[in-house]
Amino acid sequence: MSDALVIFTPSGKRGRFAHGTPVLTAARQLGVDLDSVCGGRGICSKCQVSPGVGAFTKHGVTVSPDALTEWNSVEQRYKDKRGLLDGRRLGCQARIQGDVVIDVPAESQVHRQVVRKDVTARDIVMDPATRLFFVQVAEPDMHEPSGDFERLNAALADQWGIGPVDAGLDVLRALQPALRKGKWGVTVAVHQGHGIARPVAVDIWPGLYDGGLFGLAIDLGSTTIAAHLCDLRTGAVRASGGIMNPQIRFGEDLMSRVSYVMMNPGGDIEMTRVVREGMNTLIADIARAEGIDPRAMVEAVVVCNPVMHHLFLGIDPVELGQAPFALVTSGAMNLRASEVDLVAINAQARLYMLPCIAGHVGADAAAVALSEAPELSDDLVLVVDVGTNAEILLGNKTRVLACSSPTGPAFEGAQISSGQRAAPGAIEAIRIDPVTKEPRFRVIGCDLWSDEDGFGAATKASGITGICGSGIIEAVAEMRMAGLVDASGLIGSASQAGTERLQPEGRTHVYVIHDASDTGGPRITVTQGDIRAIQLAKSALYAGARLLMDEMGVDKVDRVVLAGAFGAHISPKHAMVLGMIPDAHLDQVTSAGNAAGTGARIALCNIAARAGIEVTVGNIHKVETAIEPRFQEHFVAANALPHAVDPFPELSRIVTLPNVSFNTGGDGTGGGRRRRRA
Amino acid sequence: MSDALVIFTPSGKRGRFAHGTPVLTAARQLGVDLDSVCGGRGICSKCQVSPGVGAFTKHGVTVSPDALTEWNSVEQRYKDKRGLLDGRRLGCQARIQGDVVIDVPAESQVHRQVVRKDVTARDIVMDPATRLFFVQVAEPDMHEPSGDFERLNAALADQWGIGPVDAGLDVLRALQPALRKGKWGVTVAVHQGHGIARPVAVDIWPGLYDGGLFGLAIDLGSTTIAAHLCDLRTGAVRASGGIMNPQIRFGEDLMSRVSYVMMNPGGDIEMTRVVREGMNTLIADIARAEGIDPRAMVEAVVVCNPVMHHLFLGIDPVELGQAPFALVTSGAMNLRASEVDLVAINAQARLYMLPCIAGHVGADAAAVALSEAPELSDDLVLVVDVGTNAEILLGNKTRVLACSSPTGPAFEGAQISSGQRAAPGAIEAIRIDPVTKEPRFRVIGCDLWSDEDGFGAATKASGITGICGSGIIEAVAEMRMAGLVDASGLIGSASQAGTERLQPEGRTHVYVIHDASDTGGPRITVTQGDIRAIQLAKSALYAGARLLMDEMGVDKVDRVVLAGAFGAHISPKHAMVLGMIPDAHLDQVTSAGNAAGTGARIALCNIAARAGIEVTVGNIHKVETAIEPRFQEHFVAANALPHAVDPFPELSRIVTLPNVSFNTGGDGTGGGRRRRRA
Repeated sequence: MSDALVIFTPSGKRGRFAHGTPVLTAARQLGVDLDSVCGGRGICSKCQVSPGVGAFTKHGVTVSPDALTEWNSVEQRYKDKRGLLDGRRLGCQARIQGDVVIDVPAESQVHRQVVRKDVTARDIVMDPATRLFFVQVAEPDMHEPSGDFERLNAALADQWGIGPVDAGLDVLRALQPALRKGKWGVTVAVHQGHGIARPVAVDIWPGLYDGGLFGLAIDLGSTTIAAHLCDLRTGAVRASGGIMNPQIRFGEDLMSRVSYVMMNPGGDIEMTRVVREGMNTLIADIARAEGIDPRAMVEAVVVCNPVMHHLFLGIDPVELGQAPFALVTSGAMNLRASEVDLVAINAQARLYMLPCIAGHVGADAAAVALSEAPELSDDLVLVVDVGTNAEILLGNKTRVLACSSPTGPAFEGAQISSGQRAAPGAIEAIRIDPVTKEPRFRVIGCDLWSDEDGFGAATKASGITGICGSGIIEAVAEMRMAGLVDASGLIGSASQAGTERLQPEGRTHVYVIHDASDTGGPRITVTQGDIRAIQLAKSALYAGARLLMDEMGVDKVDRVVLAGAFGAHISPKHAMVLGMIPDAHLDQVTSAGNAAGTGARIALCNIAARAGIEVTVGNIHKVETAIEPRFQEHFVAANALPHAVDPFPELSRIVTLPNVSFNTGGDGTGGGRRRRRA
Repeated sequence: MSDALVIFTPSGKRGRFAHGTPVLTAARQLGVDLDSVCGGRGICSKCQVSPGVGAFTKHGVTVSPDALTEWNSVEQRYKDKRGLLDGRRLGCQARIQGDVVIDVPAESQVHRQVVRKDVTARDIVMDPATRLFFVQVAEPDMHEPSGDFERLNAALADQWGIGPVDAGLDVLRALQPALRKGKWGVTVAVHQGHGIARPVAVDIWPGLYDGGLFGLAIDLGSTTIAAHLCDLRTGAVRASGGIMNPQIRFGEDLMSRVSYVMMNPGGDIEMTRVVREGMNTLIADIARAEGIDPRAMVEAVVVCNPVMHHLFLGIDPVELGQAPFALVTSGAMNLRASEVDLVAINAQARLYMLPCIAGHVGADAAAVALSEAPELSDDLVLVVDVGTNAEILLGNKTRVLACSSPTGPAFEGAQISSGQRAAPGAIEAIRIDPVTKEPRFRVIGCDLWSDEDGFGAATKASGITGICGSGIIEAVAEMRMAGLVDASGLIGSASQAGTERLQPEGRTHVYVIHDASDTGGPRITVTQGDIRAIQLAKSALYAGARLLMDEMGVDKVDRVVLAGAFGAHISPKHAMVLGMIPDAHLDQVTSAGNAAGTGARIALCNIAARAGIEVTVGNIHKVETAIEPRFQEHFVAANALPHAVDPFPELSRIVTLPNVSFNTGGDGTGGGRRRRRA
C-alpha cells in the first residue's frame, strides 16, 4: 500500500504520508497552519478540518469517501458533547488512509488574516505573542526529585517544542494546585515575546482551559484614553471604550501638564497615579460589560505621545518641555503590566509600548507608521495625525521622514469663541451659499441639514450649542469660498462682503452662523480671533509638512492620509481650501481613521509587527521643527488662505477662490505669537 | 626607541609597550586584573599600582627611576585631595617610558582573593555580579534624537564593552536627573548576572559614586534568620546579625508550620508576610548600625530549607509535607528583591536563591555543598549539617550523594527534660569521672569548669539553668563512658552503677548533674526519656549516613565534616561514642562552622560559583530516606550506643567503653515511634 497523497487548501501544500497518519501530524510536517491547544488529544477542537470528497481536477486527485478513518470514540465523544459543524473532522483524530484534499478553515488557522471591515482598517495577520498550550506533565518521583515547574518545562519542550519558560512567583504559586486539580494536565498561556529573552508563562489553568485569551490595544491620548478589547485568537475587536484622560485637571494640553510638574514637585507622581487609575477603570468597565475574566486579558499594547509615555511610566517629563527634548528612553518597552500598576488585567500580563521616534514624535506616531506603512509605499505619501500636536510622516519605500508641529488646540474646537468638543449639538459641517452668503449646517446627533424639514424638532433635545473642530475648519473654508474672508484671513464688513450676517465686534467683524440669543440660546459666530487661531494652527501643520518636503526635495506629494479620530471627520476639500495640507488630487486625500489605535491593534495581534516597527522607527529620519529656521519662513508663508506663494493647482481645478481683499491697514495678517504646545 | 618591557606582579604577565602607554592600558591588554571604576579618568583611584625601582634579577630587568612618567596634574590633584600611599601611582595616569616592574596590590584587583580568617572559612575569589562603572554619556542632540538610556547603553558598550543593559522603571526615573547633575557623567551599578538574559542596571548615581556596594548573604533557618553584610568589592564581612524567625509562633518545627497551613487556609500568606518582615527588620538594623545606605545594598543571596524556601517565596508548602515531597521548583531563583518585598535594600536589588536538591534537601544543603565542595574531594567525605532535620552529603570527585534524615529537635535541646536553647547558663560541656562517677561541667558564658575556683561567682548572674544541645550529647556520651548507661541506652540504678547520683524516677533512673532545688534552683538531670530522645535522633542521623554509604558501596568514610552552628560545638569524640556519625579517625572529624552561611557568601561574592553549584546540584544523587526499607533496618541497628553491629575500630583505639548491661527485662531498647519532622 503506497503512501497517500494529502493536499491542504488553501495553502496548496502537499505531501505523501503513510496510511494511519493523523491529519494534524501531516499538517505539521508540511508546515500547514493548523491550530491546536491540546496537542492532539481530541479535546480542544482547534484543529478542525473539512475533508473534500470526489474529483479534484485542479489537484489531479479523486478522493474516496473513506480517505479518512471512521470517527473514533474520542472524536465521536467530542461531537456528541460539544458539537461539530457538518463536514468537519478533528484533525488530530482523523487519520489518512487514502489520497485526500483537506481544507483548513480560517478559524482553524493560527495565523489567520483578520479581514478589514472598512477602508480605514488594515488587514492583520494573526500571530499573537501569547498562546495557550495544553500539556500533560509528568508526576513527581521521589527517586528522581525535580520541581513541578521543571517538569512543566520538560513537558512544554517535549510536547510543543517551546521553552524553557520563565514564570513569575504568581504562576509558581498557582502551579501545584492546577497540576493536581487538572490531574497533571494543565493549560499554560505562554508569551513568546519579541524583546524578551525567554518565553514567559503568564498564567496556568487546570486541565484544558478554553475561556479565551484577550488583549488590549490602548491609545493613551492627552485628552482621551481609548481601549480596544481584542480576541487574541481571532483578532476580532470584542469591545471598545474610552474615557477622558483624568490628567486633564492638571492641564488641558501637554505643555501645561509639563508646566504643572515644573511648578509642583511631585506633580508627575500624581499624574502618573491618575492616568493609571483611569486606564484600570476603563479596562475594568469594558471587561465587566463583556463578562471577561480579568485573568483572560493577558496582554496590552499602549501607544501615546512622549509626554504621556513618560507620565504613564512614572517618569518625570520635564526634559520633554525644553530643548533638546530628550526622552529618557526612545526604545520599545517590554514590561509586566504590574510594573505600571495595571491591575485590571492578569497580574502577569505583558505590556508592550511602541518605540518613540523623538522627543516630540511618540509611540503614537510609531503606531500610525505601523498602520499606514509609509516605508512600504510606492508613491510618496504624507500622513498627518492631527491633534493638539500634529505628527507628520512623509515617505515611500526609499525613505521616511517625521516631524511634529505645534498646531495647538484650535483644530479640536478649543480657543475658538463658539468652540466646543465634538458632542451632540455641536456644528460639525457647514455650507455657505456663495450668492446669498447664508449658512446651512449639520449638528452632531442629527443627519438633517439646518434648512431641511424637521431639523428644529430633531435637534430640540441637544440644542445647537457650538462648533466642533471639523465644523470650524469648514466654516472658515466656506467663508473663504463665499468671499467673506480674504486670502489674508481678514473678515470683511457687511458692506464689503454683502451680508448682514457680518457684524462689527470691536475693530473687527464676526460672521453669525446661528443666533438664538433672543430666546436665551447661544449666538454662534466665527470671529476674527477664531480665524487667526485656525490660521496659526494650519500654518504650523502646513509648515511642518513643507519642511519634510524640503528635506525630501519635492514640492508635491502623491497622496495625503489624514489620521486621527479628528482626521476622519475633516473634509479634504475644506482642508485644502484652508491650506492645512499640501495641494493634492482630492481622490488622493483619504482618512485613515484612528491609525494610532489600529497600529496598537496590529502590534497586539502580530508579534512580528513589533520587531518590524522597531526597525522602521530606527530608519525614520526625524526633522526637528523647533530649531529649523525654514520652519518659521514656511509658517509665515502658510498664513494666507490657502497660501501666500505655493500654488494649489489641484485645488484650483475644483474651486475658484474669490479674489477679495478687506485690508484697510488696521489689522495685520496674523503672523502673531506662536508657542510650541507639546 | 624600542618598546619598553613591562612586567606585572604578582601575575608575572609581561609584554612590550610603546613609550607613553598608560599602565592601565598595558594591564588591560595583558589581561592583568587591575580594577577601575572611572575608566581611566584619574578620579576613582581603583587602579593604584606600586612600581618597583632597581634591579630585578628574577625578571632580568633593571628599572630606572624614570621608568614611569612624572606625576601629571590629574594624578597630583588626586594625591593632594584624597591622598595616596607612598610609592603608589594611578595606573591610568602614569605612563610607561622604560622597562618596569609593576606590582598590583590586592586592593587594586577585581578578582582578589578573600583569605580565610579561620580554618572553618573557605577562601573566596572575588567576582561579584554587581560592579560599578563610571561612564561619560553623550549629550542629547535634537538632530539625531535618541533616549538618554540609549546613549547610556552606547557609553557602556563603548567605554566598558558591556551591555546593552536592561533597566527597571526606577532606574529610568533616576536617569535624567543623574545625568544632568553629573554633567553627563554617571556611575552605574551593573548586575552582570548568571541566569539572567541581559545585564541589569541596578542603580545610577550622578558623577563618580564611591559609596561602596554591599550584598547580603542570608541563612534563613527555621529557628533563626542570620544575615551577613558583605562588601562586594573586598569580600569582607562588614557586619553580621540574626533574629529569631518570627514564624516560630506558627510552629516550632517545619512540619508544624506545614500543618498550620493545612489547618488554616491562608496561613501560608501570613507566614510569608512575617518572614519577609523579619528579614527586612534584620537588614535594616544591620545597615543602620553600620551607617550603610539601603541603596548601596544591591544584592542578596538567600539559602534555606525547602519549606522556608516556599514560604519565603510566597508559595504554599503543603506538598512538601507529604510524599512525594514535590517542590514547586527546584531550580535556582533569580529575582528582583522587590518581588519578595525586600524593601530594606535597593529597590532594584537582585536576589539569588540557590537550587534545592530535593523536597527535603534544600538550598541550605546546596550552600553547604558549595562551601564544602565534596565533589572536589579526593577522599570520601561525609558532610553532616545537624539540625531538626539533618542534611547529609557523601561523596568525592567521582560522585556525590545526599539525603535528609528526620533527627528531630533533641540535638537542639528540645524535648529534653532539662533541655534549653544555647544561652548563658546552659551546660554546654560535661565530664564524668569514670571512677567517682562525679560530673563537672561548663556553662555558656563562663570559661571555668564547675570544679574550678570562682565558678560559683562567675556563674552567679546567669545561674545554671539547663542543658543545651551539645551539652546533652556530651552528657549521654560521658554517662556511657562512665558505665552509667549500657550499650542499649538503659540507665543503671545507683547499686548497679555505683553512684548515688543515679536516682529512681518512676520505673527508670535519672542521673543528677546539678541540684539546686534546696535553694529554689533547678535540678538538672538526664532522664531515661532524654537518652531515648537522643538515641532516636542519632539513629536517624547515623541511618541516613549509612544509607548513603550503602549507595556508595563503602563501609567507611575518610573524613567527617560537621556543619551548622550546632556542629561547631559538638565534640567529635562524644559524637562518635554516641554513634551519631560513622567511625573515623578523630583527626578526620572537623567542624565547618556555619557552612550554609559560608556557601551563601561564596555565591554572593563569586558569580561563577552560582553556575558551579547549579551544575553540582544537578549531579548530586538524592537518596530518599522516607521510602527506603533499609533506612528502618539501619535505624534500629543504630539505636545502640554506639551501634549494635557496626564496629568502631577508630573509636576503640582511644576509648574503651565499659561492658555493662542494666537490662532486667523491664524496659525495651528504645526503638520507639519515629515520625518525620520536615
